[in-house]
Amino acid sequence: MFDAVHNREGGEDEAALATPFVKCLVRLIRAQDSFGAWEGKSDAELLGDFILTKEKRRAIPIIGDPDPDVLWRLNMFYTAVGLAIEERSGLIASPMMEISHEGFGRVLLTTGRLVLLSKTLRDVHRFGFETFWKLTAAGSKLAGDAIAVIDAHPEVARGL
Amino acid sequence: MFDAVHNREGGEDEAALATPFVKCLVRLIRAQDSFGAWEGKSDAELLGDFILTKEKRRAIPIIGDPDPDVLWRLNMFYTAVGLAIEERSGLIASPMMEISHEGFGRVLLTTGRLVLLSKTLRDVHRFGFETFWKLTAAGSKLAGDAIAVIDAHPEVARGL
Repeated sequence: MFDAVHNREGGEDEAALATPFVKCLVRLIRAQDSFGAWEGKSDAELLGDFILTKEKRRAIPIIGDPDPDVLWRLNMFYTAVGLAIEERSGLIASPMMEISHEGFGRVLLTTGRLVLLSKTLRDVHRFGFETFWKLTAAGSKLAGDAIAVIDAHPEVARGL
Repeated sequence: MFDAVHNREGGEDEAALATPFVKCLVRLIRAQDSFGAWEGKSDAELLGDFILTKEKRRAIPIIGDPDPDVLWRLNMFYTAVGLAIEERSGLIASPMMEISHEGFGRVLLTTGRLVLLSKTLRDVHRFGFETFWKLTAAGSKLAGDAIAVIDAHPEVARGL
């Protein structure tokens, strides 16, 4: 029984890791590996810290200051959303973040004169996803919503 | 002769200090004076550090890290631009800044789904204006350009 569940989840992880959004994220992270320190790591290992199971989340205090690592992961996540948007639309979407030391803030993704994404961030110190599947679902949804905005205002997206 | 020049400049300063943009900036700064420490100060004194004459500018090293005071003034300036936009259009324009510790960065002003201003910032440690007149001219121009963008895309500005 336990094995069956385990296998099903393993298969789901594999499918999630093969989605275009996760591929973007992995490419982005591997591009920063100047010294080849992560070459031996699988994609799942590389993205391991993005996953926060319910138990792990419960173990983190409700109020806390985000450390540089979690801020880096947050930045990678939204940059990957921008990259996924670029892959599908050909328009460069650059993220901009403002996070207070307490972990509250805002992220913006813009292209041309168009705001593609504007999100208030809270509890950044607990940023993470329950499964790889939820990670890719969240990223793909943000990219898809942004593409819909571009399609609704193509001239503004080109900065006209 | 010297007096005449002085008077003319004094008159210009007064006119500049009475412009809507400078009024916005002064209001913004006075709103932060929780303890009344600046009550006795005139507007010109309050904005004194925004003015960087050619001599003063020359005295600042070309490369340098911005200190918190200059970052605060930069923030006040762009927030005042946003306030001036709001006064004229009724739409809230919020600024977002990303400045590296070396004084390079970017400022964005958005309203709804529209990017009103997107500017690369350089040499932030030398942020300042030669005269009050140049300060108000710069701020008013940025606000005016943003209003033109809103007029060109009214639905996007309302976030539709």
